[in-house]
Amino acid sequence: MTKWVYNFGGGKAEGNATMRNLLGGKGANLAEMNNIGIPVPAGFSITTDVCTYYQKDKKYPDELKQQVNDAVSNIEKVMGGKFGDVTNPVLLSVRSGSRVSMPGMMDTVLNLGLNDETVEGLAKHSGDARFAYDSYRRFIQMYSNVVMGVDGEHFESVLEEVKEKNNYSSDTEITADEWKAVIVRFEDIGKELGKPFPQDPNEQLWGAVSAVFASWNVARAVTYRKLNHIPGNWGTAVNVQAMVFGNAGEDCATGVCFTRDPATGENAYYGEYLVNAQGEDVVAGIRTPRPMSLAAKLEAKSNAPSLEEVMPSLYKELCDVREKLELHYKEMQDMEFTIQHDKLWMLQTRTGKRTAAAALRIAVEMVHEKLITKEEAVLRVEPDSLDQLLHPTIDPEAKRDVIGTGLPASPGAASGMAVFSAEDAEKWHEEGKKVILVRIETSPEDIGGMHVAQGILTARGGMTSHAAVVARGMGRPCVSGAGDVKIDYKTKQFKAGSIVIKEGDIITLDGSTGEIMKGELSMVEPELGGDFGELMAWADEMRTMKVRTNAETPEDAKQALKFGAEGIGLCRTEHMFFDPKRILAMRQMIIADDEAGRRAALAKVLPYQRQDFVDLFTIMEGLPITIRLLDPPLHEFLPHTLEEQAEIAKDLGVDVALITESVTSLHESNPMLGHRGCRLGITYPEIYEMQAQAIFEAAVEVFKKTGSTIVPEVMIPLVGHKLELEMMREVVDVTAKKILKEAGVEMEYQIGTMIELPRACLTADKIAESAEFFSFGTNDLTQTTLGMSRDDSGAFLKIYQDKGIYERDLFASIDVDGVGEMVRIAVEKGKATRPNIKLGICGEHGGDPKSIDFCQSVGLNYVSCSPFRVPVARLAAAHSAYNAKKA
Amino acid sequence: MTKWVYNFGGGKAEGNATMRNLLGGKGANLAEMNNIGIPVPAGFSITTDVCTYYQKDKKYPDELKQQVNDAVSNIEKVMGGKFGDVTNPVLLSVRSGSRVSMPGMMDTVLNLGLNDETVEGLAKHSGDARFAYDSYRRFIQMYSNVVMGVDGEHFESVLEEVKEKNNYSSDTEITADEWKAVIVRFEDIGKELGKPFPQDPNEQLWGAVSAVFASWNVARAVTYRKLNHIPGNWGTAVNVQAMVFGNAGEDCATGVCFTRDPATGENAYYGEYLVNAQGEDVVAGIRTPRPMSLAAKLEAKSNAPSLEEVMPSLYKELCDVREKLELHYKEMQDMEFTIQHDKLWMLQTRTGKRTAAAALRIAVEMVHEKLITKEEAVLRVEPDSLDQLLHPTIDPEAKRDVIGTGLPASPGAASGMAVFSAEDAEKWHEEGKKVILVRIETSPEDIGGMHVAQGILTARGGMTSHAAVVARGMGRPCVSGAGDVKIDYKTKQFKAGSIVIKEGDIITLDGSTGEIMKGELSMVEPELGGDFGELMAWADEMRTMKVRTNAETPEDAKQALKFGAEGIGLCRTEHMFFDPKRILAMRQMIIADDEAGRRAALAKVLPYQRQDFVDLFTIMEGLPITIRLLDPPLHEFLPHTLEEQAEIAKDLGVDVALITESVTSLHESNPMLGHRGCRLGITYPEIYEMQAQAIFEAAVEVFKKTGSTIVPEVMIPLVGHKLELEMMREVVDVTAKKILKEAGVEMEYQIGTMIELPRACLTADKIAESAEFFSFGTNDLTQTTLGMSRDDSGAFLKIYQDKGIYERDLFASIDVDGVGEMVRIAVEKGKATRPNIKLGICGEHGGDPKSIDFCQSVGLNYVSCSPFRVPVARLAAAHSAYNAKKA
Repeated sequence: MTKWVYNFGGGKAEGNATMRNLLGGKGANLAEMNNIGIPVPAGFSITTDVCTYYQKDKKYPDELKQQVNDAVSNIEKVMGGKFGDVTNPVLLSVRSGSRVSMPGMMDTVLNLGLNDETVEGLAKHSGDARFAYDSYRRFIQMYSNVVMGVDGEHFESVLEEVKEKNNYSSDTEITADEWKAVIVRFEDIGKELGKPFPQDPNEQLWGAVSAVFASWNVARAVTYRKLNHIPGNWGTAVNVQAMVFGNAGEDCATGVCFTRDPATGENAYYGEYLVNAQGEDVVAGIRTPRPMSLAAKLEAKSNAPSLEEVMPSLYKELCDVREKLELHYKEMQDMEFTIQHDKLWMLQTRTGKRTAAAALRIAVEMVHEKLITKEEAVLRVEPDSLDQLLHPTIDPEAKRDVIGTGLPASPGAASGMAVFSAEDAEKWHEEGKKVILVRIETSPEDIGGMHVAQGILTARGGMTSHAAVVARGMGRPCVSGAGDVKIDYKTKQFKAGSIVIKEGDIITLDGSTGEIMKGELSMVEPELGGDFGELMAWADEMRTMKVRTNAETPEDAKQALKFGAEGIGLCRTEHMFFDPKRILAMRQMIIADDEAGRRAALAKVLPYQRQDFVDLFTIMEGLPITIRLLDPPLHEFLPHTLEEQAEIAKDLGVDVALITESVTSLHESNPMLGHRGCRLGITYPEIYEMQAQAIFEAAVEVFKKTGSTIVPEVMIPLVGHKLELEMMREVVDVTAKKILKEAGVEMEYQIGTMIELPRACLTADKIAESAEFFSFGTNDLTQTTLGMSRDDSGAFLKIYQDKGIYERDLFASIDVDGVGEMVRIAVEKGKATRPNIKLGICGEHGGDPKSIDFCQSVGLNYVSCSPFRVPVARLAAAHSAYNAKKA
Repeated sequence: MTKWVYNFGGGKAEGNATMRNLLGGKGANLAEMNNIGIPVPAGFSITTDVCTYYQKDKKYPDELKQQVNDAVSNIEKVMGGKFGDVTNPVLLSVRSGSRVSMPGMMDTVLNLGLNDETVEGLAKHSGDARFAYDSYRRFIQMYSNVVMGVDGEHFESVLEEVKEKNNYSSDTEITADEWKAVIVRFEDIGKELGKPFPQDPNEQLWGAVSAVFASWNVARAVTYRKLNHIPGNWGTAVNVQAMVFGNAGEDCATGVCFTRDPATGENAYYGEYLVNAQGEDVVAGIRTPRPMSLAAKLEAKSNAPSLEEVMPSLYKELCDVREKLELHYKEMQDMEFTIQHDKLWMLQTRTGKRTAAAALRIAVEMVHEKLITKEEAVLRVEPDSLDQLLHPTIDPEAKRDVIGTGLPASPGAASGMAVFSAEDAEKWHEEGKKVILVRIETSPEDIGGMHVAQGILTARGGMTSHAAVVARGMGRPCVSGAGDVKIDYKTKQFKAGSIVIKEGDIITLDGSTGEIMKGELSMVEPELGGDFGELMAWADEMRTMKVRTNAETPEDAKQALKFGAEGIGLCRTEHMFFDPKRILAMRQMIIADDEAGRRAALAKVLPYQRQDFVDLFTIMEGLPITIRLLDPPLHEFLPHTLEEQAEIAKDLGVDVALITESVTSLHESNPMLGHRGCRLGITYPEIYEMQAQAIFEAAVEVFKKTGSTIVPEVMIPLVGHKLELEMMREVVDVTAKKILKEAGVEMEYQIGTMIELPRACLTADKIAESAEFFSFGTNDLTQTTLGMSRDDSGAFLKIYQDKGIYERDLFASIDVDGVGEMVRIAVEKGKATRPNIKLGICGEHGGDPKSIDFCQSVGLNYVSCSPFRVPVARLAAAHSAYNAKKA
């Protein structure tokens, strides 16, 4: 005979904490508390199997009825009283309980077992008629609504009428007799609607159980599950438990508490309670809850008496429970308790939610307290949550005057004056002003302005738009794709709803939430104390993948080193060309009509580019640096307005028509799929030659100066055919060998490619013949595999997520089935040709924990991400290594 | 002992025609002619194996020397005379001969064996001292140049000097004695340069043999092989043969002839000859060659005597050779002959090149003559060559004043006045003028103008740019991507080099060559006679794949039916929306801000769209039609200039700002990767709903009217995730079922998808769950797999082809290793889920023979191409079926 019902109460239980899947989280923990001697009102859990059985067969298993009857008898035995008894009735609560918490999504029925007769018994037994009738009318109201489907409005209007007639301002003023009259009217409502409230306690019980099971499939629960990736076939358990009352007199109380401070992680009892109140009163905020401990009371400078003062022995008992639970679960617990006539009952315990800072502190301290291992500590901190700790954030106390929202594109917060062009940003910055750069979207030309800005706001572009990627790379807060923000460059202002922000007006961005606020808000600086360093060191011991950073400026490289980067996985050389001193020579190269002209212009860029690499090699002190040769289409270096073109023509001493003609002839319909990457190197090998020269001359210079072992990794972008790589490899090889020979230096170096095209993945076996490493450029690989531009997908990707087609932002978290499959194919083919090929990822996904998990699963050697994501990646890689070991 | 040398001569040979790989084409055919009793000067072939041996080991096989000596003895025996003999010297020619003809790429040495002594023998034996010394000096000149590497200039300057001194206008005036003096000076040249001409005939022979082998690897030969995909390891054979002279007197002659007319295919002897001349004289055009037959002479109204008249018995002998060779080879032959003192020698025979029309006629007539089978006939006609036959072409006699060239984007030729906007094209067309539409590039808005134009010229865009694709679809000639054409819309003119073409100037385009010409050229209309129909019927019997067409207009559909299309593989519904009557409603839909607004606008489009399908279903009479739902991004329907926006705002009765805002907010950086395809259907399901309604209402209407069995195939574009297809399938299904139920009609229909994204290929197993068919959209699949925009790739793809990275235009011929692999994966996965899934291709590649071969190899059920490619595809599919059967 299948066991469908699990009893608990009186210090023993048939279930335990490991039986979450069968009993739900709540039921499993209630059983566990019983088992370890913590006072819990007796009850039973009807298993999740019943839920799935019921969903499938539209009826209950035959044995269920008898098992429930027996379980009710057990409650009566443990708690005293009888269910449905007219003198000492046991009342029951009926609650849902799924494997994972789905707060507020499913139904609950309280005070079950009351009827016109048992209410009298409750009144007599409790000696409090008002309490009894109030409980009864609450039950009728709740039951009629939840189980019978009567609209709550009907009951509310009766209550309003009664209060109005008696001039009462709140329900609490209604007397026992008045409640009796209300109850009659409540019962009439159901009758009139053909949905009469049942007097039979057993009928009540089965009605409530069925309603709770049915609530697993109400629309809001289904939606919640979809959003949280919870399978519908898990089902819910139903927990039936004897009622205890915190509102049955002045010797009663109820409260919620945490074993440690969920905000700071401090190892101190934290909680709130109310005397003579029900659980919902503590949460609802009608009465102000009081601090549990004297210490907390003093710290909060509160006048309200603490539980420690009011009920010292019960407080002591609660402290014992706290200690017992934490020692038992070895995790911070979030508990609910009720004190009924000086007796403590625990109603729930579960793992407590906490801030990132608290999670970190609790994990580290629990290791010190020998409660958990270092590995467990590392696994307890969500990698993504670290992001909160690494950037200045808005003071939680500050008032937020939100005028619009966009995507939380780069974390952290910043205030400054709104400016509408990169040029203005730089000008104002020189004048000592703090600015926020506001653009419809950004382009590489804006890099200078972005650099000096405190934060960046764009009206267009997704999580991996230019603005977002660059901002994250720089560690600048950024809100992107704020569709409601209407920017007018001409008048230098933007509108967000009815609010107009003019140039110079101060705004604040929260890059972690996507909020845009008017005015300046106070900030909190990140504190990366010892706990952070300690946990990260443990994480580093666990992980098997290296973590590099995507960086090209000395500032970024230094920042990343501070955050623990073990090399540079992607140094984009084009960002270096946008410097005003260099871009003129770049432009001269672009308009040159022969190789000699291009070489002359490139010769001017060479010393700058060489110095870039000297700086990076020096900073990174022998750590590996993957340098990607020029990637973007050349038109990105040319200006688009006629005014700017005229200016450049003057600077270069050429006719403006020449510039305009270049701009026109270089224009591309789909620049993402255009003349870029190694296609530039194939058409103008002299560009890559100059870059190779700069790299190896710099490497030689730094080697001679510092003696560091430098192993430059030269990366050829956008390879789709093995011959592209072979030809570009030849250009780099010849240059490198010449320079090293002339310098009399022996130096290892590697040449590899960015794998970012489906064709490269499918022919990776061929490409690996000439590649010492593959670095997966999953940004572009996502764009090509899905045929989806990251800049343009904002218009529909949100709808795709809403409809559940793609669960996550594809540009933030790798599409495992599509792009991941591409990567898997490439890894397999690449290794078939060259078993020891070095494999890494340098797309945005390199900083995303889910994607890092994927990288571990396919056997990459390292991930690379923007400097501020390095700690996240280090922690995530530790989790991934653990998951892989377990699998 | 390996046999390195194969003798022929005197009516027998050691080789034969099947030994091309070993003896080269020339050597194999010389042997074959011997075997079938045709007079050929004796000689021998040194095998291609010697070439590869020599390349590898840098020396000859040991046995070679003896084998060559023996072979020379054989020549002496057969021809009389002795090699190096002073009284009756045998002279030799040394020629290359690879498996396939590489005309002019490798070296030749003639008159070998002459030296200061043997020349006297030749003079005496021939009785013509001038002939002997002229031959000798030619030999020294050729040998010194080819074998010794002496610059030909040295000899030419001596000749110039002699002619000047004697006041001669040509070499032929130089006397025997003068030649003697020249010979002394020629010999001195080599001596002075340290490259003396060798007197020893054997040394001469080995020098020449080595030079010919070495010429296999000279730069021009290597390049030629690369361009023609000939492997370098094939090597060349060397043919050494006794010299015969057509220039040894008036009883000598030389000529070139074909067994049938290579221009028309007529079964008539066709050829030219000259008396007392060498082979090169016939080709070089210094003397005008004479017609072979009397009939040809009469037809050409020539006064020159025919060979039939001059040497009737030799002519008769040649006619016998012609008959013998054609009967033997069962193929039209191209032959060279020499008559030496009234004796006929055949020097070469090979399969003759011919025009497309001739190929067709010869193939069909040879079947009627029972020379070859129908299958052989089908295989003898190059599918691509049919293109020449299906369009009007420029009269071959017309003088071409070429002012620029672009890509031969759509075949055929057209003349007309240049206009620079689609609007002007339509206006001028209404005024009865013939126009050529000249645009930098075209967009869907230009469709009306393209339709009325005679031809289309664009400065930008590849073989599959919008202009090219649409033009091919319409059968309009098009030259695209003419980079040298600088178009100025403002002044309405373009410059090509120094030539300026103004609006209204007449130009002619040759879409088959890419040439742009000034003025009007006369045209030749295509004649699709009985041969064409007969051959196509044979092809249809052979092929296993169906051939459909890409068409959406009644004109195209009718044209395609005429060309034998078996259905429509791609009906693009968006082209239907650009009609002026409909586009306003489309625009109204786009600017609508809610579903109701969109539905109202769509309701206006519905009747038009329904009529489109009524027309197509009626025309196609039950043949399958695959209808693709709306695909392009919505911004393609909006105009880009402010003037046009203002006009539309007026038409729609809205503020222009609203239109401008729509244009701005719909702008995309990479429209190819943007909000298009089923992404439109997912965000605005009402669009696809309207289209489904139009399709099924039309199907019902036509079914009721005609009784044709109609099986609509509804195609959802740009699917990347199975849920996209599932959701859109639901929209179409619901609509279809409702309409069919209301009409009381039972009708099968299919819903499938276009496979055009790598992600779709990798997840084809999942997608096939909801797809009854896959149609490979290899245009977009090429763009995404390679990350290469077809519109932007013009800037570098040419260079890629030049450098040998990609051999062919990727958008014209499928990239088998990359895109093909994608298709292969999708086919395999799709069939795993749904073994009987219908598979087709509707990209541009569907009309390309190489790609059709690929389609056959992966097991597609049909190919679909533009109407004018349908015959090409039918023939290519027959070839592919044959290749598959053979493999």
